[in-house]
Amino acid sequence: MIRFPKQVRIVEVGPRDGFQNIKQYIPTETKLSIIAAMVDAGVTLLEVTSFVHPKAIPQMADAVEVAETVCGKYQNTALRPIALVPNITGAKKALAAGIQEISYVISASEKHNLANINRTHEQSLEDLGKISKELPELKVRLDVATAFGCPFSGRVDESLITKLIDAALKLGIQTVVLCDTIGVADPLLVYQHASKIKANYPGLDVGLHLHDTRGMALANSLAGLEAGITMFEASVGGLGGCPFAPGAAGNSATEDLINMLQSMGIETGISLDKYIAAATIVREEIQSVLTSRMAYACKYENM
Amino acid sequence: MIRFPKQVRIVEVGPRDGFQNIKQYIPTETKLSIIAAMVDAGVTLLEVTSFVHPKAIPQMADAVEVAETVCGKYQNTALRPIALVPNITGAKKALAAGIQEISYVISASEKHNLANINRTHEQSLEDLGKISKELPELKVRLDVATAFGCPFSGRVDESLITKLIDAALKLGIQTVVLCDTIGVADPLLVYQHASKIKANYPGLDVGLHLHDTRGMALANSLAGLEAGITMFEASVGGLGGCPFAPGAAGNSATEDLINMLQSMGIETGISLDKYIAAATIVREEIQSVLTSRMAYACKYENM
Repeated sequence: MIRFPKQVRIVEVGPRDGFQNIKQYIPTETKLSIIAAMVDAGVTLLEVTSFVHPKAIPQMADAVEVAETVCGKYQNTALRPIALVPNITGAKKALAAGIQEISYVISASEKHNLANINRTHEQSLEDLGKISKELPELKVRLDVATAFGCPFSGRVDESLITKLIDAALKLGIQTVVLCDTIGVADPLLVYQHASKIKANYPGLDVGLHLHDTRGMALANSLAGLEAGITMFEASVGGLGGCPFAPGAAGNSATEDLINMLQSMGIETGISLDKYIAAATIVREEIQSVLTSRMAYACKYENM
Repeated sequence: MIRFPKQVRIVEVGPRDGFQNIKQYIPTETKLSIIAAMVDAGVTLLEVTSFVHPKAIPQMADAVEVAETVCGKYQNTALRPIALVPNITGAKKALAAGIQEISYVISASEKHNLANINRTHEQSLEDLGKISKELPELKVRLDVATAFGCPFSGRVDESLITKLIDAALKLGIQTVVLCDTIGVADPLLVYQHASKIKANYPGLDVGLHLHDTRGMALANSLAGLEAGITMFEASVGGLGGCPFAPGAAGNSATEDLINMLQSMGIETGISLDKYIAAATIVREEIQSVLTSRMAYACKYENM
């Protein structure tokens, strides 16, 4: 018998992971209007920006303004704004802007970590240790990139993930997200990795960040659900994930994930109709063709 | 523990279900070259055409030529060419052209059957009975349309499907395909319908025909696999299924399905690389933007 959790938390990463892949600069007020529409739909976990150097990602040059506005506007609400930080400098800026929860990325594949951020595992963990020690008030989510496959070293063994988890646990981190950075995970691999990690780390909050590059975002989500995963990162319209060709897909699309979960009777706390309104702003203001299916599918009132 | 079959049969329906939704006429030799590339890739179950009136679907005006050519060229090979027929007249034409296996469609929702082909269930079954009686040499596949949801009457109860299966069994039919005609099935519903029908009809060959309208084609395939389904219809490039907007998806894309199954170690007998060559002809000659993901995803040699 197939079994699923009754409730799932969706972490919206569009305003960070999605927007950072958009070439033209998105005005801050457009970013904020999309975030507002998402919150209005019921999104409570939201990666709002990234405190990276604006030379590296110019799209995130307004990180302080976005974070300060969102943290101010929604304080004392259910919203938990999250920001990605690449290092202690970014973490300090995030905290100063009112952010209480950050994402920090290390690739399971060390080759990828070196290629991506020019650091060994040891160097990345050292930096993460500094953040934990110097800024203990920040809740940290560890994003394990290339958790299923790496462009340089192929399939990623689960031991590479557990090595990072063990190190993270020592730093007091309680949330780990397994990221299918290049979209090569398949349902069997997701089930295997996720169920082993769930079993070996019962106290750990384990999430999945899936890509739809090969059309498997929802199938992999399903496999994750079956392994007991109850937290999924997703991006509005499927934005992000470095699609490199027209028609190529990026991140798991939030609206497609909400729709699947809702159809199966799994609660997310997010209104699909209202969320589609947020996706519509994205379509009208940022990118006219989205890779999500629900941005285009018609609605049947009787289903 | 998640469980899957070791082997799956894919029924390619692109040359029928996909092509019939293409407006511009596809030259017969282009159709045949795509079919040849599919066979070369290892496809053995192939819906090659539809014996409908050319006024209804002009794209299928060359049904006789396509069927005769394919049946002649591949006789004494592993290929089993299939044709869709709407009635006894079509069935006779198919048989005369060398076809030995046909698909016949009845909607589980009678309202949809009436809207689609202007027949009650009784009339459709009567016609199917005529085919079985007069042309016993034809193997018949019953496609149960709207098996999961109907645009007019909402969710489809499993009892509507079993009513049709019971009638089909009396006519000696041994193959039934549950079709998600409007793309509203979700993994839970697929699992429920498929596992009940597998349990209640142990001798029946049950297939699934899924659409990607709401991005769930592969997730629904996964749920089908878990219910023990080992036959899936799919269409090259995701062609077909009446997409009505740019970016909107149609049928489950064959190359995406092959890729998922292959990644999970499930055998299909089809070479993904060679199949992509067939999809490339479709892209170059018929439709430049496909909704399948594998038509665009890059290949990693080490995975």
